[in-house]
Amino acid sequence: MSETNGAQHLFDQAIALCGEPNKRIAKVNPAYQNMVGPFGGITAAKILQAILKHPEREGSPISLTVNYLGPINSDEVEIDVVLLRANRSNQHWSVVLKQGSEIQCSATCVFAKRRDTWQSQEAACPDAPHYEDVACIPELPGFPVWVKQYDMRFVSGAPFEKVETAADGIDKDLSESLLWIADKPARKLDFASLASISDAFFPRFIIRRRKLAPLGTVSLTVHFHATEDELEKLESGFVLGHARASKFGGSYFDQTAELWSEDKKLLATTSQMVYYKD
Amino acid sequence: MSETNGAQHLFDQAIALCGEPNKRIAKVNPAYQNMVGPFGGITAAKILQAILKHPEREGSPISLTVNYLGPINSDEVEIDVVLLRANRSNQHWSVVLKQGSEIQCSATCVFAKRRDTWQSQEAACPDAPHYEDVACIPELPGFPVWVKQYDMRFVSGAPFEKVETAADGIDKDLSESLLWIADKPARKLDFASLASISDAFFPRFIIRRRKLAPLGTVSLTVHFHATEDELEKLESGFVLGHARASKFGGSYFDQTAELWSEDKKLLATTSQMVYYKD
Repeated sequence: MSETNGAQHLFDQAIALCGEPNKRIAKVNPAYQNMVGPFGGITAAKILQAILKHPEREGSPISLTVNYLGPINSDEVEIDVVLLRANRSNQHWSVVLKQGSEIQCSATCVFAKRRDTWQSQEAACPDAPHYEDVACIPELPGFPVWVKQYDMRFVSGAPFEKVETAADGIDKDLSESLLWIADKPARKLDFASLASISDAFFPRFIIRRRKLAPLGTVSLTVHFHATEDELEKLESGFVLGHARASKFGGSYFDQTAELWSEDKKLLATTSQMVYYKD
Repeated sequence: MSETNGAQHLFDQAIALCGEPNKRIAKVNPAYQNMVGPFGGITAAKILQAILKHPEREGSPISLTVNYLGPINSDEVEIDVVLLRANRSNQHWSVVLKQGSEIQCSATCVFAKRRDTWQSQEAACPDAPHYEDVACIPELPGFPVWVKQYDMRFVSGAPFEKVETAADGIDKDLSESLLWIADKPARKLDFASLASISDAFFPRFIIRRRKLAPLGTVSLTVHFHATEDELEKLESGFVLGHARASKFGGSYFDQTAELWSEDKKLLATTSQMVYYKD
């Protein structure tokens, strides 16, 4: 699947870690920069990677919450990883990401050794044409560089999409998007990239209002439904993402999304709260 | 609204705090016990209350994540509260709840001073009859005592509700519930009770499978959409809750819900990951 001709994929470069298991050092990669500081998804992936690479880690991620305290503006960060508790079937991790002595992210994460149980997927995968039949988004003027690292193909709800205004003058459009998304160039999907893609849906404010504004995620939660084995068996790195907001008001809105595999398996669900100014 | 005739409401007794702002001591109230240890909602409310009562707290809650590391089986817990960062418009808090020296919950929470902004509620409140026209659930044999502290009135998806099995033998039912829920006796809704109610939807496993099983929430996230002023103006303590699961598999399922006011305002959205054995 790799199209990087032997060189390490930019995503892997961006989440690479040095240092000790409980105190990692990571470079801030300019390819994943956002408006102010790095794209939140790459930071979440880096935090998850610090747990995935920890020698005491057992099992796979179930739940990850990352809180964004302030913009990272250094070239390097420190990631402090603490295993708070290891139970028979799960592990509770606490992580802080620091720039110098200042905490820029606080995170908690649950890992678990999953077992075979009764199973049922209740949510229904939305209908969408195959990703090969959907056009890539064009270059978006004013958009940050991290957007270039993803192959995004919107079925509906692309940024700045022209939508007819209802006859009574009230815009009836919603902040909903349906899109195929994959690392660019192609890369095998794993838990770290799934965490990053969970934050790669454009802020719903932009989709709804069709303009840019000062905004930033304050808290991101990802619930992982895919097992390691399910990810391993996926034929492509493309995920069908379905994102929306429930409510905008009082400087904050929420943003939720489902991430589906090509064969209609629910891989992850995610929700976040985002600050905005308007 | 109080029907407690001057005595403090059980909920307020259950979230009462002693000690210092950064190191609270709280009793474990037997009225809110679950199968093993206290009901997760009352623990989440206690953690939120420790921040709400902190002298450095500014604004109202935006996002709360509580991770449940192990069952609390002491009469008393310690709640350590740390303000990680205070920005111009928000605050990031980190909380651990301990039983002796052992951490039983880790939590993070964002508070914010909300400002007047453009607003829009995109999610649609489900139709439901008025709560006065919906029957209270009967005593549920085998259910824990915390259930008695809530007035639950199911419009659909009550536990053990008889549902016809489809003709082809495959049960087509989903784990969805729609219900009115309030503190019993009535109590004015506030952020602490909203946090507790966010965890008061029966585990979706029970709704779907119509049986009890070993299960427990490992991580709960609540996103608050209501402002303090909106909560203050509510005429009753009743919330319309709409809960469902997306996927059960590999020992874990998710559970998401929306909490609506009587006048159809979205007060909070919540999601959690739950361990189960089956």
